[in-house]
Amino acid sequence: MAQKIGVLLSGCGYLDGAEIHEATLALYFLDKAGAEIICMAPDKDQMHVVDHNAEQPQDGETRNVRREAARIARGNVKDVAAVKADDLDALIIPGGFGAAKNLCTFAVDGPDCSVDPGVEALVTAVHAAKKPIGALCIAPALIAKILGADHHVELTIGNDAATAAALTKLGAKHTDQAVDDIVVDEGNKVVSTPCYMLGPGPAKVGAGIEKLVAKVLGWL
Amino acid sequence: MAQKIGVLLSGCGYLDGAEIHEATLALYFLDKAGAEIICMAPDKDQMHVVDHNAEQPQDGETRNVRREAARIARGNVKDVAAVKADDLDALIIPGGFGAAKNLCTFAVDGPDCSVDPGVEALVTAVHAAKKPIGALCIAPALIAKILGADHHVELTIGNDAATAAALTKLGAKHTDQAVDDIVVDEGNKVVSTPCYMLGPGPAKVGAGIEKLVAKVLGWL
Repeated sequence: MAQKIGVLLSGCGYLDGAEIHEATLALYFLDKAGAEIICMAPDKDQMHVVDHNAEQPQDGETRNVRREAARIARGNVKDVAAVKADDLDALIIPGGFGAAKNLCTFAVDGPDCSVDPGVEALVTAVHAAKKPIGALCIAPALIAKILGADHHVELTIGNDAATAAALTKLGAKHTDQAVDDIVVDEGNKVVSTPCYMLGPGPAKVGAGIEKLVAKVLGWL
Repeated sequence: MAQKIGVLLSGCGYLDGAEIHEATLALYFLDKAGAEIICMAPDKDQMHVVDHNAEQPQDGETRNVRREAARIARGNVKDVAAVKADDLDALIIPGGFGAAKNLCTFAVDGPDCSVDPGVEALVTAVHAAKKPIGALCIAPALIAKILGADHHVELTIGNDAATAAALTKLGAKHTDQAVDDIVVDEGNKVVSTPCYMLGPGPAKVGAGIEKLVAKVLGWL
């Protein structure tokens, strides 16, 4: 039986959704390892839509997070509100601003952010069931918001001091790490890697994701 | 000096643009090899917009090919009409329906398709300069349309008989191939791999792309 690994997406494109390289490389390494992949996203409108060439908001346009996520997943993206911890053996959350705009509001509200209810319920339940969680790029901010205060989870978002301070304020422990490496919290079964919080490109980002996926599957 | 490899994108999402896994994995293997990547796309509206979860057209919506491609490239996508063969050492074209809807109209017109003028000019010039071309998934149909009649280029789109027949009608030679392998035309310096014309997922698709990228760089 293949392990069932949930991949929580937040749209399609790093400025308003899931970071495409991070999401795709997570799927790639999961598939190489023989995992069964279950993609999911919130079924709601994105915070906004950004022109990724001009790096400017596209005013007046709306896009649905789940529908856009299906571009990365090639269809079949479940509504995260309908996914239960029992459906999964582990959960991986790619980054991109979508993780901090659509899964929670960390990008605009920092430590005072709110979390999408379906996302909060699933992450809380997966952690409570002692199943592994892998968080990429800025997604550790989401994990810190949900699990920091009660579980003091150890995470990395690379080495950005302001973001690291925000995670610490949420009760998490932040550890600086290089883009091609991971930080492991064995007690909480949480692993994180900086990805495009540090860049510089898909090869180094992929090296960190490859280690993260191996660690998640190694816990199973 | 790093080799300059053009990656010609056709949007973002396999039903109306560039196939995201194919494009991302091409970037990943190019970056691993130390290549300098130059992303480009036509600066025009997509043929249409498709809801990738429902697999139905989103009527009334328009998206710009180049702007959407920038989601995959993380910005800095050049207008293909402004790129010259002299700017590149080789050209790689990911698939997805975008290659057959936005780069040319093969998806609706078959062998009678028209080709985007900027795309036709660049592919013709890159080939004339004896620089390598890598074509993924359905992108070989575009190459067959541009180079088939005069250069009888050998290509693969996997093993779909109707599509293979269309390539043959365009003057190309079609060779069946497995998803994780390539077909090489040494004389024309053209290499192709079936990708999601066969599937089944990013691991096997990536294996073919890894070989294609190695072959392209090996010619340089």
